[in-house]
Amino acid sequence: MPFQPTPPSVPPKNATLSLRQPKGLPVHVQPLNPLQFILRAAEIYPDKLALVHPDVKDPVFYSFAVWCQRIQNLAYALIQAGIKPGDRVAVIAPNSPLIADAHHGVLAAQAVLCLINTRLKPAEVAYILDHSGSSIILVDHEYVHLLPPNLKVPVVVSKDSGRLGDPYEQFLSNGRTYSQERGWPGLEYQADEGFPALLCYTSGTTGRPKGVVTTLRGSYLAAVANAYESRIHRESTYLWILPMFHAGGWTFPWANVFAFATQITLRTVDYPLIWKHFLNSAVTHYCGAPTVQIGIVNDPAAKPLPRPISAIIAGAAPTASLISSLEEIGIQPIHVYGLTQYGPFTRNYAQPSWAALSLQDRSKFMARQGHAFATAQDVRVVYQPKDENDTELVDVPRDGKTVGEIVTRGNIVMKEYFRDPEATTKAFRGGSFNTGDLAVMHPDGAVAVVDRSKDIIISGGENASSLAIEQELASHPDILEVSVVARTHVKWGERPHAFVILKTHSINKWKGRHDAFSKELKAYAKPRLPGFACPEWVDVVPELPKTSTGKILKTDLRRIVAKL
Amino acid sequence: MPFQPTPPSVPPKNATLSLRQPKGLPVHVQPLNPLQFILRAAEIYPDKLALVHPDVKDPVFYSFAVWCQRIQNLAYALIQAGIKPGDRVAVIAPNSPLIADAHHGVLAAQAVLCLINTRLKPAEVAYILDHSGSSIILVDHEYVHLLPPNLKVPVVVSKDSGRLGDPYEQFLSNGRTYSQERGWPGLEYQADEGFPALLCYTSGTTGRPKGVVTTLRGSYLAAVANAYESRIHRESTYLWILPMFHAGGWTFPWANVFAFATQITLRTVDYPLIWKHFLNSAVTHYCGAPTVQIGIVNDPAAKPLPRPISAIIAGAAPTASLISSLEEIGIQPIHVYGLTQYGPFTRNYAQPSWAALSLQDRSKFMARQGHAFATAQDVRVVYQPKDENDTELVDVPRDGKTVGEIVTRGNIVMKEYFRDPEATTKAFRGGSFNTGDLAVMHPDGAVAVVDRSKDIIISGGENASSLAIEQELASHPDILEVSVVARTHVKWGERPHAFVILKTHSINKWKGRHDAFSKELKAYAKPRLPGFACPEWVDVVPELPKTSTGKILKTDLRRIVAKL
Repeated sequence: MPFQPTPPSVPPKNATLSLRQPKGLPVHVQPLNPLQFILRAAEIYPDKLALVHPDVKDPVFYSFAVWCQRIQNLAYALIQAGIKPGDRVAVIAPNSPLIADAHHGVLAAQAVLCLINTRLKPAEVAYILDHSGSSIILVDHEYVHLLPPNLKVPVVVSKDSGRLGDPYEQFLSNGRTYSQERGWPGLEYQADEGFPALLCYTSGTTGRPKGVVTTLRGSYLAAVANAYESRIHRESTYLWILPMFHAGGWTFPWANVFAFATQITLRTVDYPLIWKHFLNSAVTHYCGAPTVQIGIVNDPAAKPLPRPISAIIAGAAPTASLISSLEEIGIQPIHVYGLTQYGPFTRNYAQPSWAALSLQDRSKFMARQGHAFATAQDVRVVYQPKDENDTELVDVPRDGKTVGEIVTRGNIVMKEYFRDPEATTKAFRGGSFNTGDLAVMHPDGAVAVVDRSKDIIISGGENASSLAIEQELASHPDILEVSVVARTHVKWGERPHAFVILKTHSINKWKGRHDAFSKELKAYAKPRLPGFACPEWVDVVPELPKTSTGKILKTDLRRIVAKL
Repeated sequence: MPFQPTPPSVPPKNATLSLRQPKGLPVHVQPLNPLQFILRAAEIYPDKLALVHPDVKDPVFYSFAVWCQRIQNLAYALIQAGIKPGDRVAVIAPNSPLIADAHHGVLAAQAVLCLINTRLKPAEVAYILDHSGSSIILVDHEYVHLLPPNLKVPVVVSKDSGRLGDPYEQFLSNGRTYSQERGWPGLEYQADEGFPALLCYTSGTTGRPKGVVTTLRGSYLAAVANAYESRIHRESTYLWILPMFHAGGWTFPWANVFAFATQITLRTVDYPLIWKHFLNSAVTHYCGAPTVQIGIVNDPAAKPLPRPISAIIAGAAPTASLISSLEEIGIQPIHVYGLTQYGPFTRNYAQPSWAALSLQDRSKFMARQGHAFATAQDVRVVYQPKDENDTELVDVPRDGKTVGEIVTRGNIVMKEYFRDPEATTKAFRGGSFNTGDLAVMHPDGAVAVVDRSKDIIISGGENASSLAIEQELASHPDILEVSVVARTHVKWGERPHAFVILKTHSINKWKGRHDAFSKELKAYAKPRLPGFACPEWVDVVPELPKTSTGKILKTDLRRIVAKL
């Protein structure tokens, strides 16, 4: 039997698609709020496919009209559960309708969406639930075990079925009943565009996670910019590979709706499944960190695409070899840079002059983080503070050499760290957000991240960027992925230690000959890197330790080399 | 000798491209301001061609870096001339660098740009200069005769040469000297995004023109929406056919810069010149009212385009025959709707189901004004007020039949009528902007303008839309353009009177046989229109009276028929 939305998901005929306006607003001022997007989509393209969740036991397919009704039901259900404006609603879910709904429905209840990474440990989840003061938890059935015992707040479990009998569907259904068909005009539009939208916690490899608060205004402007910069339009299909809980899916849960695009949600990063969709589902866009992109291009199913796909890449700079692998099969990389503290904030803008360059040379330019994004504002690289009281921001010269810290300000920057004024003040030193990312400023104004402060290798008194070393080593034809950390050296203070994963077809080639590979790689590095940056040690490993969001855990690698 | 920008137009090396930030702004709030666009373009694409003014005695070609410097020079020159924040700067110019500069440079001086239509009479210009209280006038050399005698404010004349010796160039040069290379950081960024950006006067066929004030916030959001909706990007080339003084060029002077597009300015609407650029200048976008579009497709040089061009059409609905003519040669119409009181506010969004329709049927859908634009908010059709005290807005049913008035609200709507609180209050009846445009609301939520209130023909007690009649008559193969007005009729009260311009190749066909054509057209109308809407009278005329912005002057036509 073909899929049918549950009866409470079907909107009444001629439903009004606007909320009750707050009193006292001037005619020419409408507070910016990404909730507007779904209402507009349901008005203009009610029957267009909005949200597809195909690779599960119970697939679902929602049009904008139906999805919009489900979002309204969610808002009423939350209000019925006692949620008041500003309350936090925690969501623990992989990519699925639940978390997609929540990006709109929680805002419709004027609540704040607290996204929790499904890859965290129960203790971390408990900390975040407690710190955020979440008043209700929406959780996917596979992640119920992450919840602490003795919870004092209500929990709604989704079986991810979209069918009657699923507790989440019952929750939505109750919302519809509770609304008594007051519909959208029964909900009030948030009058303050500075009101919080999301609360996302940093993955925090050191220290406790911090809660990043973003605003409705910032979310709206970031989403519009992402749709524009990635050229997502109504004929686009976006594949959800990046987890939506990761910094609010870089605002793409809203950008796609703004664009009237169709979204396909995948519960897990499953490369054969991704390729199935690339080849059969008219996918045009997806987001992913380089580590995921590496998995995509190296999957056995990878082959030249019939139509180009745009890949938005962030989280780390793509290497030349990755860019080349992507382009070869028709994936067009769009390199952007951001942190949990905001959506994409810079973009690598292609220059006409690059067309004449070799791929190798072009990739070096493409690996730069670039310039401020469409609706972003200032991106600067400034000297790090001399001491605790140093709040003056002084730009480093535009020489592509002097290392400083990236600072940003503007509408896309976070509002604050939740319930942590001290950390907020520190992060906002000098009236800008201090990212902690070390970078140089090139003469053309492009920012290039050299490293996180703690990842720099001080070798013979020289600062070696572990990222720059990784960029060079990654171009070796046998290397799939590489990470470099500092290791103590009696003579030079520190020296680079490289951890390498070989490509599938190269594993046999070097089997039992890792020493030979180590020599080969050092020889490969010699003409490409300054002496102090050449790896002193090379380890071939089957895998690299990663954070729950897919970043390589250099702290773990440092712990390993500390014992050597 | 190839063109060289004047020495003061060349920026210093490593110029800082940001203004002095106002104090006290939170890190996550940057007031929206379209001035940001040119600074960002000059930062990211300094050497890209930004502004081309080719078809004059002294052509000019500016890169973003040079243009940005000229804009800065203009800001300092205005400040040197005594311009303070909020002062009005009047500009009287055809499409040219002067008026393009002013869209950015006046905002950089925190002043308000008062755009004056070059097609007005001197008395109207005098009224606007006086009413706006403009403190300085920048005027193109061809329009100096429009200025009233005994002006008490300074006047800067541009010879539109871009060469030394031109008084406007001297003005810019003085600005550079005056700035003492303080550059952009010597100018303060406007802290209030609700601050006025433009002051444009309605063409006002009846009564005195009213001054429409738009805000920085509204201008920013409208420009971003236009770039997104029209898909203007860095590889785009925009041809300036629409006068920039017409409602601020529908915010495209900013949208194009936001997109990093190249702009080509044409002083006049010259069809052979337009075709020269269509065929040789890689044009991708332009704006124009239907009357201009008719001129374009009927020009002898018209032929199928090697690459498609997007035409943004507003001012009136395109007829089926126009849409077909445009599409045949590769021009893709984007039908939007707005007034001087805001930029484009609705758009006709193509529906998948239209693909199966005949052109004739599809055109009927495409002629609708459609749904709210990307960053616009509410568009409603409401019953007209019962009396002066009636401020309640009641939506008409979505039946595609009941006629009401279009009302709008949101960030793109004007802030107020300048120095006219009474007209502002009246226009903002019920907390929305009352457009005066009569429309129906279709079941799918699409708005379709039926007429301006005064253009409705009350024929035998029925309301006949002059627009609807024109739409049908325009499909006759011999008709280039048609306008229909009410004429008194002894029996029916009013009956439609059609004024027709024949296509060039049809003029001879009907020469001396206008009566026969009149019969033919009435017969053509009969199966297509209800009896009360069929034209009772048909006049073949060589031209139609038009307002300075190219709209047909129905008041003049009504005056003619009143005498018959």
